[in-house]
Amino acid sequence: MGSVHVRNIARQIPEANLVAICDLRLDVAQKIADELGIERVVADYHELLEDKSIEAILIATSTDTHAYIMQDVAKAGKHIFCEKPLALDLKSIDEALTTVKEAGVKLQVGFNRRFDKSFKRVHEIVGSGEIGRPCILHIISRDPEPPAMEFLRVSGGMFLDMTIHDFDMARYLLGDIEEVYAIGKVLVSPEFEDIGDVDTNVLTLKFANGAIGTIDNSRHAVYGYDQRLEVFCSNGVAMAGNESENTVIKGNPEGLHASRIPHFFMQRYAPCYIEEVRQFIECIRDDKPTPTNGVDGRMAVVLGHAAWRSVYENRPVKVSEFLSSNDSDAN
Amino acid sequence: MGSVHVRNIARQIPEANLVAICDLRLDVAQKIADELGIERVVADYHELLEDKSIEAILIATSTDTHAYIMQDVAKAGKHIFCEKPLALDLKSIDEALTTVKEAGVKLQVGFNRRFDKSFKRVHEIVGSGEIGRPCILHIISRDPEPPAMEFLRVSGGMFLDMTIHDFDMARYLLGDIEEVYAIGKVLVSPEFEDIGDVDTNVLTLKFANGAIGTIDNSRHAVYGYDQRLEVFCSNGVAMAGNESENTVIKGNPEGLHASRIPHFFMQRYAPCYIEEVRQFIECIRDDKPTPTNGVDGRMAVVLGHAAWRSVYENRPVKVSEFLSSNDSDAN
Amino acid sequence: MGSVHVRNIARQIPEANLVAICDLRLDVAQKIADELGIERVVADYHELLEDKSIEAILIATSTDTHAYIMQDVAKAGKHIFCEKPLALDLKSIDEALTTVKEAGVKLQVGFNRRFDKSFKRVHEIVGSGEIGRPCILHIISRDPEPPAMEFLRVSGGMFLDMTIHDFDMARYLLGDIEEVYAIGKVLVSPEFEDIGDVDTNVLTLKFANGAIGTIDNSRHAVYGYDQRLEVFCSNGVAMAGNESENTVIKGNPEGLHASRIPHFFMQRYAPCYIEEVRQFIECIRDDKPTPTNGVDGRMAVVLGHAAWRSVYENRPVKVSEFLSSNDSDAN
Amino acid sequence: MGSVHVRNIARQIPEANLVAICDLRLDVAQKIADELGIERVVADYHELLEDKSIEAILIATSTDTHAYIMQDVAKAGKHIFCEKPLALDLKSIDEALTTVKEAGVKLQVGFNRRFDKSFKRVHEIVGSGEIGRPCILHIISRDPEPPAMEFLRVSGGMFLDMTIHDFDMARYLLGDIEEVYAIGKVLVSPEFEDIGDVDTNVLTLKFANGAIGTIDNSRHAVYGYDQRLEVFCSNGVAMAGNESENTVIKGNPEGLHASRIPHFFMQRYAPCYIEEVRQFIECIRDDKPTPTNGVDGRMAVVLGHAAWRSVYENRPVKVSEFLSSNDSDAN
Repeated sequence: MGSVHVRNIARQIPEANLVAICDLRLDVAQKIADELGIERVVADYHELLEDKSIEAILIATSTDTHAYIMQDVAKAGKHIFCEKPLALDLKSIDEALTTVKEAGVKLQVGFNRRFDKSFKRVHEIVGSGEIGRPCILHIISRDPEPPAMEFLRVSGGMFLDMTIHDFDMARYLLGDIEEVYAIGKVLVSPEFEDIGDVDTNVLTLKFANGAIGTIDNSRHAVYGYDQRLEVFCSNGVAMAGNESENTVIKGNPEGLHASRIPHFFMQRYAPCYIEEVRQFIECIRDDKPTPTNGVDGRMAVVLGHAAWRSVYENRPVKVSEFLSSNDSDAN
Repeated sequence: MGSVHVRNIARQIPEANLVAICDLRLDVAQKIADELGIERVVADYHELLEDKSIEAILIATSTDTHAYIMQDVAKAGKHIFCEKPLALDLKSIDEALTTVKEAGVKLQVGFNRRFDKSFKRVHEIVGSGEIGRPCILHIISRDPEPPAMEFLRVSGGMFLDMTIHDFDMARYLLGDIEEVYAIGKVLVSPEFEDIGDVDTNVLTLKFANGAIGTIDNSRHAVYGYDQRLEVFCSNGVAMAGNESENTVIKGNPEGLHASRIPHFFMQRYAPCYIEEVRQFIECIRDDKPTPTNGVDGRMAVVLGHAAWRSVYENRPVKVSEFLSSNDSDAN
Repeated sequence: MGSVHVRNIARQIPEANLVAICDLRLDVAQKIADELGIERVVADYHELLEDKSIEAILIATSTDTHAYIMQDVAKAGKHIFCEKPLALDLKSIDEALTTVKEAGVKLQVGFNRRFDKSFKRVHEIVGSGEIGRPCILHIISRDPEPPAMEFLRVSGGMFLDMTIHDFDMARYLLGDIEEVYAIGKVLVSPEFEDIGDVDTNVLTLKFANGAIGTIDNSRHAVYGYDQRLEVFCSNGVAMAGNESENTVIKGNPEGLHASRIPHFFMQRYAPCYIEEVRQFIECIRDDKPTPTNGVDGRMAVVLGHAAWRSVYENRPVKVSEFLSSNDSDAN
Repeated sequence: MGSVHVRNIARQIPEANLVAICDLRLDVAQKIADELGIERVVADYHELLEDKSIEAILIATSTDTHAYIMQDVAKAGKHIFCEKPLALDLKSIDEALTTVKEAGVKLQVGFNRRFDKSFKRVHEIVGSGEIGRPCILHIISRDPEPPAMEFLRVSGGMFLDMTIHDFDMARYLLGDIEEVYAIGKVLVSPEFEDIGDVDTNVLTLKFANGAIGTIDNSRHAVYGYDQRLEVFCSNGVAMAGNESENTVIKGNPEGLHASRIPHFFMQRYAPCYIEEVRQFIECIRDDKPTPTNGVDGRMAVVLGHAAWRSVYENRPVKVSEFLSSNDSDAN
């Protein structure tokens, strides 16, 4: 993700001035810096914290390092864009959010899907009230294939690695979630069992506004990266479908055939990765609240933990079991 | 076609009272009559002409017999529903239409596609003026496979057998046609050359209202019976797509797959065969003009001849070369 | 429903010989009998039980009468087609099924949707194994508007009146269901609260084969009768979409516009009502098991009760709490 | 177009090294150069011809200057990417192509649509032979609104300004065109008549391989930039549809609604403008023939002239009337 952001900022976001790349693997960082004409490359992010000319830092390191880097960056008075999840444990998140709040810096969490043009359009339609009261939300979010086992082992499991995006999307579309009921199964790849994870799940959500939601996730959508959602309301419905690799339909004696759904999240959400950082820059420039803040980052993790508890105990789990003082006023 | 109409009338059109079936092959007629509980079966249609209780006769015989049967039926004072084409030669048509007019009976020609719900909807949208002035019409009309050679040999060729439906559809949607330019080719089945026919054609039409149209026909659409059209207007567009055998999409590693387009005209246009006769009965009952009259029947044949002439002479052909006194006021 | 079946049998199912119509309102029965040329009309179904020439009886009375009529018909040795639900209480169903079994007559339950061409196609694709192991099922089943309050009051509530179809569809596609978690809400029409019913629900199902399912229902889909489903499998997906009133797309400066989804279940499932009875007749003629039998009829009611219990107790409910000896071998 | 190419090269095509921008309006060029960090800006392109370090020049000036700039650039030994049309008159084109050939430099013409992923996919499918012999091509290509009258006045008219892209697409998909029949009308904007131009046209094409094609163009597709095509073949069909602004379907009591088709060619074909230049750079680097060469550039203009002649004389016009020695071996 780091290299995606770096290339986007250098090439597509002229409003930002990318001054340095930090990576423990200095050679990797140097290569990209050369490609993009970035002058400074460091292995230790602390060097950047001392640089007064740097206003903001984008954190795309491994999840276990997010919280303490955030704290250091916040203490240095720099704004923060941090990839999701903020951390796997709520204690680290709470400490980091407290520091961020005290430092008065801005924090944006990398929930890229909020910037997808189709999901935004659904958000607009539902938010406008033109189709009435939200009743049912469905999110279908299936990966074409699982990531490497080494990554999965430290990912926090399906609900914290994958569903976390859908929890945030659900909150983006319909607001606060009060209760989660989750079913998680290993239906395709037995190796998920070895690491205590699941490869297929279905969740039911109760929203504060009365609406009901479902999320389904799989690691094995062989026909592509399947990303759909719909909001059914009292006076209509808004549905966002999949994009396509191309618009071609081939007809032959067997029927009509279209291409696979685009395979990879980088492809489907490419414009979102640009737009989220563009808006982050804008929020700093205009001193506006960020579109996805610390509460959003924390709540998605809370919902992931609630889902795991629901699976272990086979019961609906209330989100209130996980609430803290950070939930109402973090920035 | 006769058996289709007979079954429809007996089962689906309670407004009509089907009293007799006529077929030179008495056994065939008897079998259907038994199935449907029809009491009277005759081999010679003249027997029916003398029956005062019969108000109308539906003619679904071979094309070469249409014109003289129409004349006999008209002289007997009975209303007529006749399958298309009325005849292959204009002289027979003109004589028959004159007799029909003199007899004061109603005549409806079997242009079933005007009764298709989607094409009717396009007609309504365009007719309402809500999308502005018609500019361009496209009709795509492709058969899944050619009929038997014995039929093709006496069919009048592609423009009179197949395009005739599209000519009528074009007139239904955009009104009078003034000029036709046609290209006809044998691209798939060499045996069409042996009988002086073509298996692929593309026509360009100039309408009296200024609009331009195209029709394409093929005898070999291996993916199904492809029946689409669109009317592009100055303030919008109306497009009618194909129906589907079912709504199922199958996704697999190769892509997304839908069923073939329904294969056969009987399947696609089944409701139209009922509706056209239902309306015919209604026109008799309420003494209204029929929806597809003698002028419509004649003009489609004229356009077929114009198309052949255009192919032979490789030039746009004016419809006015074929006009007669019957074109403006026949019924 | 009775009149639909009667018309279908008389007009569309020549294999059946419809000899009598029974209705407490004799005048209603007489009117339809006249229309269709049926000779016998009775107000009391017992009269028909004595008629040795009658082989089968189709029961489309109000739900509370199904069970005892079934028992009477079974004792008279006649085969039974009964509309769903068999009854609202399991005791009545169990008694009726016992009698049916003892009498050795055939019983088919009116789960019409199993005969929908698109759902059948999904069933075939999934059943063939070509897209691998079933993982997730989604059924979306939304009515365009609620029925009359008088009917709703005695309907058994949303899970027994409406979801019952979806329970059967879920079992048809993926087999036995082991556990149900249901959320039911009144989100649109407050009058549902007055009768202790809901107008919106979302259910989660655990199948014996490991798959997970969801069903969503609403009484208020203003854009039409929304009937979709999909089965996501380890090697692909099969999705059945909505049908359309017509295939027309209108483009104008505001965008592209299609017609509503067909409004009414009679329209969407019209061919199913014919096909289910046609197959019932065939099963009698060829002495084959019926496609939707007593177990199917009972299990759908069990699942409805499980769903209500789940809502009341806000917990997943095991189907095994409702099992009886009839579940494994009824016919 | 110049600024689009300049931005694309600077930001998206790292293989190219953009060293200078030339524009008669120096301030315009300077502004973009500043934005992109380009050091050299000139008003007179001759300055660049002397610079030995420059390998290639992209010409995006007004059409009337293309031919003589090409000649100058060719004589300076630099490769050429030139926007379409090469010129409005064939004499200028022929002289320029002769010079290009003598100079041995590469020439690519800016037919961007050949690089559209969907049209490329159709090209692949048809080219592979998997759907048999090409029979019918349809190209629909409608602009959302006309450009400024000042531009239209010097554009060469609809066939040379707009259809030229479709002629090239037709040749890309099905090869040589032998005959053109064109109908051009003013149906929407009377001001087109004042400048001797048309706003609506339909063309019929005869291909050397026996296939038949149509093109339709309009300046007034109010629902968006409508860009579709299909190739019907003896064993199937390949159709490329429109892209969409987003994938959202809104359902309400009026029906189902999708967004407009993306409005502007810059939006629809944005990736093509990058890809065509990327391939041009690649052809220089690897010394390969360019994908759209001088013959392609000339033939599209020939077909435009043939279309105008067809309209004036209302007859099919053979392309052979316009052939020259440059048609078979230019590069």
